[in-house]
Amino acid sequence: MTTEREEQVLRRIDRARRRKARVRDERITLAHGAGGKATHTLIEAVFLEAFDNPLLAPLEDQAVCPAGGARLAFTTDSYVVSPLFFPGGDIGDLAVNGTVNDLAMCGARPLYLSAGFILEEGFPVADLTRVAGSMARAAGAAGVRIVTGDTKVVERGKADGVYVNTAGVGVVEHGFTLGAGRAEPGDAVLVSGPVGDHGTTVMLARGELGIESDLASDTAPLAEPVAALLAACGEGVRCLRDATRGGVATVLNEIARASDVAVVLDESAVPVRDEVRGAAELLGIDPLYIACEGRMVVVVDGARAESALAALRSQPSGERAAVVGRVVAEPASLVLVKTEFGGTRILDVLIGDPLPRIC
Amino acid sequence: MTTEREEQVLRRIDRARRRKARVRDERITLAHGAGGKATHTLIEAVFLEAFDNPLLAPLEDQAVCPAGGARLAFTTDSYVVSPLFFPGGDIGDLAVNGTVNDLAMCGARPLYLSAGFILEEGFPVADLTRVAGSMARAAGAAGVRIVTGDTKVVERGKADGVYVNTAGVGVVEHGFTLGAGRAEPGDAVLVSGPVGDHGTTVMLARGELGIESDLASDTAPLAEPVAALLAACGEGVRCLRDATRGGVATVLNEIARASDVAVVLDESAVPVRDEVRGAAELLGIDPLYIACEGRMVVVVDGARAESALAALRSQPSGERAAVVGRVVAEPASLVLVKTEFGGTRILDVLIGDPLPRIC
Repeated sequence: MTTEREEQVLRRIDRARRRKARVRDERITLAHGAGGKATHTLIEAVFLEAFDNPLLAPLEDQAVCPAGGARLAFTTDSYVVSPLFFPGGDIGDLAVNGTVNDLAMCGARPLYLSAGFILEEGFPVADLTRVAGSMARAAGAAGVRIVTGDTKVVERGKADGVYVNTAGVGVVEHGFTLGAGRAEPGDAVLVSGPVGDHGTTVMLARGELGIESDLASDTAPLAEPVAALLAACGEGVRCLRDATRGGVATVLNEIARASDVAVVLDESAVPVRDEVRGAAELLGIDPLYIACEGRMVVVVDGARAESALAALRSQPSGERAAVVGRVVAEPASLVLVKTEFGGTRILDVLIGDPLPRIC
Repeated sequence: MTTEREEQVLRRIDRARRRKARVRDERITLAHGAGGKATHTLIEAVFLEAFDNPLLAPLEDQAVCPAGGARLAFTTDSYVVSPLFFPGGDIGDLAVNGTVNDLAMCGARPLYLSAGFILEEGFPVADLTRVAGSMARAAGAAGVRIVTGDTKVVERGKADGVYVNTAGVGVVEHGFTLGAGRAEPGDAVLVSGPVGDHGTTVMLARGELGIESDLASDTAPLAEPVAALLAACGEGVRCLRDATRGGVATVLNEIARASDVAVVLDESAVPVRDEVRGAAELLGIDPLYIACEGRMVVVVDGARAESALAALRSQPSGERAAVVGRVVAEPASLVLVKTEFGGTRILDVLIGDPLPRIC
């Protein structure tokens, strides 16, 4: 697939990546929250180092833990999206769907959410009521209950209206383990719908680009599509990841590294709406790095690709699900893109933060 | 106990309290985060109204939920304490102990924590590493594992260094239910140690009072003292509450209201350190309203009061545990204090927020 010289370069990149993580910055930058390279380094160097334990170590979107005879899934996310309200959703349904989806990605049935609010002094109570209403509706739609919560208030200028944290608990009722480390050569890679809608919508809602558009966030719960996939393909499903911060590109890199395989992505097969493509061009960002909040990357046994596709397409808003790539053995831990013009390029993890506070 | 006229007044107060909660403010104030009256009204009018479900409705510090055949305890708290580092602790061990204690208060065995960080751009990585180290040590001491997490970054000026959210999961291995609604006339009320250390320490650490003191936060895990209590008194234990925001006074009011009983507190029996009493006098605050982060209020069958006291005193830093009051039938839903000068006064829930951002 590559010349000897290219292989040497790739091996060098690979070795560099496997070195012990160290944060070179003395201070936190926005890139540390972007979900890309800087976030990973921070998590590995600071949190994984301090909290070291085998349940955290896989660094999946959720931990699967034994408790009272059950297999629990447990996850958390804080939401700092700006603006709070945008076409297709708000910080409330984002906070519910995001955590529901992190539970669903290990095949768990989401059950319960917690809700923690950090409010800025002066925030309108009517806006908070609207956010709580969105959370309640999203929880109802996803079949989960918000059972516990917390409210803190900080002085004016010490937050930005409201920040929401949700944690979620679910039960894993199947006997197998999904994970970024389970991809094998021969597997197929799918996405469950058009990518980049959420990030682009939030960006446009800030009004800085001056573009009018009908685009709306794709924020949605993914537990039903996951149940359909598992029913159709069983253990043939290797790995599920919702493509949030860092987008599809970052998810594929995580899978390639964790499984020590290469992912070859067919760029022309990735569904991207025209509005997203247009805005991404203006912003100088590849749509593959733009966050979704209701789309997932699916890695499945190659022999099950058509069943998986049919299962995804049977779901509401799944009609544009597509097979977008395949897993091969080499060059291990890299993602290659076959471009629409017939070339090949390396798709790296996100560097920096082109779209801060998207979720 | 009271004259007819006093009884009329009390019944009127009581009726007023039972009215449907409504937030009169158009905007969030610091009082909404103080854990007192305004916090309760906000929670009831906005969150309970929106998220309405029987698991949330008791508004305990944790929800107890069925999951995969187990009885799970699930809780969350966000931490916005200022300053981040103070004598005896920092935001990190506070975030671990606070959530461990919310689990312990229903008699659950705490198992797993999540950790969500909202970082302000420019926050020193060294400080974050120090906070993570404190969290790891506190988790080790409490026998829990931090298994999942999240990191977000907001722009400079949109947070205050770092805010930490923890959620926690535990298992309830006993068959009974502890709760604020279980107090009965004849029960005894205990506190597990001197009250107000944490809130006073944080206040003094801000340097605004210009007082030097050796006082340190009481932040500590309470799972072991709870286990000792349950071993000593079994179902004789009615209710446990850690006396955080709003202090002992607010906890006792919650119990009096939920159980439709009166609590009579013997002020002279409540252990308060001299430094706390002194600072509270300067601040014009009753120490009964000052937050602790490692002390709990215990309501226990009156016949078990001595066993409960012995169990608490057998624990590290439990030597000043004390029986401080008793539960009587009337005047229902009020807390009365027998003052050190022989009088009686009503101890209401906290109004306003004399000590913002204490946890």
